[in-house]
Amino acid sequence: MSAGGFSDRLREEASSIWERIFTHPFLVEMGEARLPLDKFRFYVRQDYSYLMEFARCLGIAAAKAEERETMRTFASLLEASLTVEVEMLEGLAERLGIPPEDLRASEPAPTNVAYTCHLLYVAYSGTVGEIMAAMLPCMWSYQEIGERMGEDAALWRHPIYSEWCSTYRSKEYIDLVDLYRGLVDRFASESGASVRERMRRHFLLSSRYEYLFWDMAYRKETWPV
Amino acid sequence: MSAGGFSDRLREEASSIWERIFTHPFLVEMGEARLPLDKFRFYVRQDYSYLMEFARCLGIAAAKAEERETMRTFASLLEASLTVEVEMLEGLAERLGIPPEDLRASEPAPTNVAYTCHLLYVAYSGTVGEIMAAMLPCMWSYQEIGERMGEDAALWRHPIYSEWCSTYRSKEYIDLVDLYRGLVDRFASESGASVRERMRRHFLLSSRYEYLFWDMAYRKETWPV
Amino acid sequence: MSAGGFSDRLREEASSIWERIFTHPFLVEMGEARLPLDKFRFYVRQDYSYLMEFARCLGIAAAKAEERETMRTFASLLEASLTVEVEMLEGLAERLGIPPEDLRASEPAPTNVAYTCHLLYVAYSGTVGEIMAAMLPCMWSYQEIGERMGEDAALWRHPIYSEWCSTYRSKEYIDLVDLYRGLVDRFASESGASVRERMRRHFLLSSRYEYLFWDMAYRKETWPV
Amino acid sequence: MSAGGFSDRLREEASSIWERIFTHPFLVEMGEARLPLDKFRFYVRQDYSYLMEFARCLGIAAAKAEERETMRTFASLLEASLTVEVEMLEGLAERLGIPPEDLRASEPAPTNVAYTCHLLYVAYSGTVGEIMAAMLPCMWSYQEIGERMGEDAALWRHPIYSEWCSTYRSKEYIDLVDLYRGLVDRFASESGASVRERMRRHFLLSSRYEYLFWDMAYRKETWPV
Repeated sequence: MSAGGFSDRLREEASSIWERIFTHPFLVEMGEARLPLDKFRFYVRQDYSYLMEFARCLGIAAAKAEERETMRTFASLLEASLTVEVEMLEGLAERLGIPPEDLRASEPAPTNVAYTCHLLYVAYSGTVGEIMAAMLPCMWSYQEIGERMGEDAALWRHPIYSEWCSTYRSKEYIDLVDLYRGLVDRFASESGASVRERMRRHFLLSSRYEYLFWDMAYRKETWPV
Repeated sequence: MSAGGFSDRLREEASSIWERIFTHPFLVEMGEARLPLDKFRFYVRQDYSYLMEFARCLGIAAAKAEERETMRTFASLLEASLTVEVEMLEGLAERLGIPPEDLRASEPAPTNVAYTCHLLYVAYSGTVGEIMAAMLPCMWSYQEIGERMGEDAALWRHPIYSEWCSTYRSKEYIDLVDLYRGLVDRFASESGASVRERMRRHFLLSSRYEYLFWDMAYRKETWPV
Repeated sequence: MSAGGFSDRLREEASSIWERIFTHPFLVEMGEARLPLDKFRFYVRQDYSYLMEFARCLGIAAAKAEERETMRTFASLLEASLTVEVEMLEGLAERLGIPPEDLRASEPAPTNVAYTCHLLYVAYSGTVGEIMAAMLPCMWSYQEIGERMGEDAALWRHPIYSEWCSTYRSKEYIDLVDLYRGLVDRFASESGASVRERMRRHFLLSSRYEYLFWDMAYRKETWPV
Repeated sequence: MSAGGFSDRLREEASSIWERIFTHPFLVEMGEARLPLDKFRFYVRQDYSYLMEFARCLGIAAAKAEERETMRTFASLLEASLTVEVEMLEGLAERLGIPPEDLRASEPAPTNVAYTCHLLYVAYSGTVGEIMAAMLPCMWSYQEIGERMGEDAALWRHPIYSEWCSTYRSKEYIDLVDLYRGLVDRFASESGASVRERMRRHFLLSSRYEYLFWDMAYRKETWPV
């Protein structure tokens, strides 16, 4: 835990956005085991596409990390993203009846493109602290989603939604988020006012995109042109 | 002119998107001199913010250009963006009653953020040909907009809209677009299939964002969270 | 094997540089088991520092790879660089009497800085094919060095030099180089003339740096100022 | 002037390296108007090549600058590098009997490659403060060289060396260096310990490269392989 750290302050500043995430119909209906499966299928395909771009950011974070230990952390997260996490989604997709070739051919919806371009632009142009701040809302909000959603008994009667939720309630996942937060706090403490301000802006923008991502899935968003 | 070149093929492939641009209420109402001024004010402030990010891409294009002459082209476009073009918008803003400090403090709306992150991610990660392909729809569609809009006699009775339109009907502007297109065609001809495919994707995505940008201005888009 | 491919042509063009590598006193004396240990210690410390920068390039290559499978390849090479390969050097350092803290604190000598800045500049500014072409001489020349050096019976009487050499004669290593070369060949075949020319220049420059790196170690190079 | 600022501290830490620059035979002989012209011709060709890479860094600095005013500064420096400064070198080359096509075809010598790869790697991977810190020794040491060299009466009898020296003694040039230093000081004051440490390292490495660059020219350095 890193109570009182920089990440806590970011979390507090973003709290109204995060509250909107937790109360979005997608997550509410999922917790009550009544989210239509086609919306969840849409989400899984988008998340699969998102994960690849998220992994790219980890590659650049590894390249930009100052210390060996931090490089190793990012390298192993990158490796995990492209193996364990991808396989988790592939397993989920299989049980949802999404053919592997469809999953792999998933085209990102507009909000997905916007979110990942934001992450990748930060990755290329920013410091490693900024990259982590931009990536943190995804990691962290999923932990809180898992925590809250799991409190609803209805969820556990749904074989797929409960499986998804379990991932983000696992000790491994919680430890991972703590590790991330610790890195963000450390980078912030080593950074000056201007980098910390950029970290703050990236965290808030990514928090907004987290909300928009769920909304995109709920609406099964398409390009208007 | 570069008839039959790569840029012509991209333009053709994007023609249905571009048609949607030309027929968007924002531009139709502007041509008929009946677009509400508050929508145009919103647009000018967003364009001012966009121009700064567009200029960043030109800086990176200059850094990535292989040849001295191309570097010089981008450097002088960058210089022009930050002087002549900015001043044009500042003059327009003044006549629209937007105080300079408001203009400078303009926060980009969601679509503006998405569009410029796309451009900047391409700028950092791609080749100079890809950067140009991503930037071309903005440059080029404005020329065609100027051409079409100027045919409507109503426009010329509106002191501000006609001034805006004149910029993109000037010989200088048309020559500039021709220069850009020529560069894109040359880069494409020197590139292999995979770079050309990325140039194509960037051009199409930027075309979509051009449409969305006008729509953003018409709706005076705000963040939902 | 990729006979007749792009990498073969690069190898042929660089053959006089590579011949100078194979006949450099450092490698000749090593093969005859008479290289002074202090020169080898210097080399190991420099290689340790080099490996970290090489790993950064792999992180960016993973970020820039178009396809999932190529991303995975780079991610697993990155992971391996920071674990298996680092541990190999740490084991070697231990047997050479270099304290772990000294190994980790190794400052790169001038040639090492020049070589890794070249690799990293290519990594940030170039396409994935260019990155691979810049990295290939290191990978590939070590395989050929292992092959040639191993033919000298004297080597095998030296516990440390023979251990070092064995690494680059292993089936795993040879397969890895084949994989790299295959990637370079594929990228080249998908690229246009200008990218291929840059790949060629990067390969030749890295080949020169490979020679200079051995020479740096032999001279135990220091900064003149 | 920015007495007591971060740049002053860097300058002090690098003072022994800078002293080696001022007393290098290339500059001593130049000040005494007895440097062989072929060494100066070599220098001019290398500087011409260097200037193009330096300009690339300015393009990226413009792209990374936070504020409009700083973007404009870099953009106008970039424009000036590719026009005024290039023309100054072209004029000098003409008087030295270097044909324009030879000047343009100048291949960078090893030290030139190493120096510019360092600058460009910092440009792509670092913050704008780091880029400025890496570029500062070039700008600033030339001012001090001009100051010292101009004190030698012998110099002023040499039409070419005195012309070169005058450039760096002009009010415009001195103001430019002051502007640069002011930017470095401001970036440093806004940055945390880790960025400041990287700024320091880049400044010291670039200072070393400044020395090595003069030495390269004096030796008319070539690639050993």
